[in-house]
Amino acid sequence: MSANSLMLYELAGADPALRFSPQCWKVRMALAHKNLTADGIPWRFVEKDVIAFTGQGAVPVLLHGEEAIWDSWQIALHLDERFPNTPPLFDGASAIPVTRFVNGWADSVLLPAVARVIILDIYDCLDDRDREYFRVTRERKFGQTLEQIAADRPANLLMLRKILTPLRQMLKGQNFIGGSRPRYADYCVFGMLMWAHCVSATVVLEDEDLIFAWRERLLDAFDGFARSAPSIATRREEHVNGR
Amino acid sequence: MSANSLMLYELAGADPALRFSPQCWKVRMALAHKNLTADGIPWRFVEKDVIAFTGQGAVPVLLHGEEAIWDSWQIALHLDERFPNTPPLFDGASAIPVTRFVNGWADSVLLPAVARVIILDIYDCLDDRDREYFRVTRERKFGQTLEQIAADRPANLLMLRKILTPLRQMLKGQNFIGGSRPRYADYCVFGMLMWAHCVSATVVLEDEDLIFAWRERLLDAFDGFARSAPSIATRREEHVNGR
Repeated sequence: MSANSLMLYELAGADPALRFSPQCWKVRMALAHKNLTADGIPWRFVEKDVIAFTGQGAVPVLLHGEEAIWDSWQIALHLDERFPNTPPLFDGASAIPVTRFVNGWADSVLLPAVARVIILDIYDCLDDRDREYFRVTRERKFGQTLEQIAADRPANLLMLRKILTPLRQMLKGQNFIGGSRPRYADYCVFGMLMWAHCVSATVVLEDEDLIFAWRERLLDAFDGFARSAPSIATRREEHVNGR
Repeated sequence: MSANSLMLYELAGADPALRFSPQCWKVRMALAHKNLTADGIPWRFVEKDVIAFTGQGAVPVLLHGEEAIWDSWQIALHLDERFPNTPPLFDGASAIPVTRFVNGWADSVLLPAVARVIILDIYDCLDDRDREYFRVTRERKFGQTLEQIAADRPANLLMLRKILTPLRQMLKGQNFIGGSRPRYADYCVFGMLMWAHCVSATVVLEDEDLIFAWRERLLDAFDGFARSAPSIATRREEHVNGR
């Protein structure tokens, strides 16, 4: 393994090509932003032993040569530090602390709101071995069965759109959270929407929403990197086309 | 008037010394941060004609020599641009776009949540001439009478504390939204809490909350500038002391 080789443990679905984890999408976009490529290693929730060397049980885990880095935030900092000659994720060190607030908002407010909308879609995409783990942990977290959460989808969807208000407000003044071009702050939020995009047919955003246009810009970024990623939509299309 | 004189139209209560507007507090802190002093001009909601020269009807309005700047965000940008030799509100231009997200969160999420907790306290502090304007506009906005909103105070307070989660999450990793020292992003959020601090006896934050400690740090900043500002607490104390 070369000193600069990159490998990324990523959550995968029953279809190993389906990589939908919001935290992994933050890192996938960060890598694309920096013109870096990592070998993605499909990982399932039940494979805690595979990443036990990190002392924790969640992906993404990035292997960079002999180093292992986990937690999407730490991976982003690592990438900017170790690849200073590629486009910066943080436009100067001064943007890091404020971006941490955006990341905290994405994780603590947006993530659970998206989860409530797509929870059964996620379940349906999971590898058989992961389904019991997912059901037990998520039902404990939400205090409801997956089916009970999904039954409120129309209300949950309205709540999600309302929760996105600060992003919508900001987009009246600029094209990206990073300003005139995307930065890691954008990927923190976009990762949550890619999660929905990959597993769910639900129309999360209305066409006329400023956030819709922002998401389009990010789906198109890096030669359509995110748009061309396997999703249930592309799978369905391949099925229709008899591929 | 000297070319660099600063005057600030600020919302005042029945007591002209009571300056509680959250948007004005953003600017008050910004001025203190930059070691600048503005003459504060008490203004009431009914005095739209006094600031009509701006083409809009809200404070803060900053007069800088012959220039008038309004909207707290624009004032912050103006101060950093025009006073480059005082401590920067934005730690480099790259921090501006991400801070705009924080400002949008403060205005669109935090402001209405604080308002629901302190709405009658605000009303009680207002100048008699402002009360009808405030009641009519706020009752229209919330679709409830001020008394109906206030009747839900316990639930509204719990909601406010929940809404502050992203700030709490961030404070696990750093002391200020600006990192190791406060920046304009901090004042965007702190302004909302100063609003409550000035007009309400409600205990908004619990002592053990990380946000409590952050607010203490900002109350203490600039030689206790915010802590020593007139508030209903200081007024009550003066009354007790027979002043």
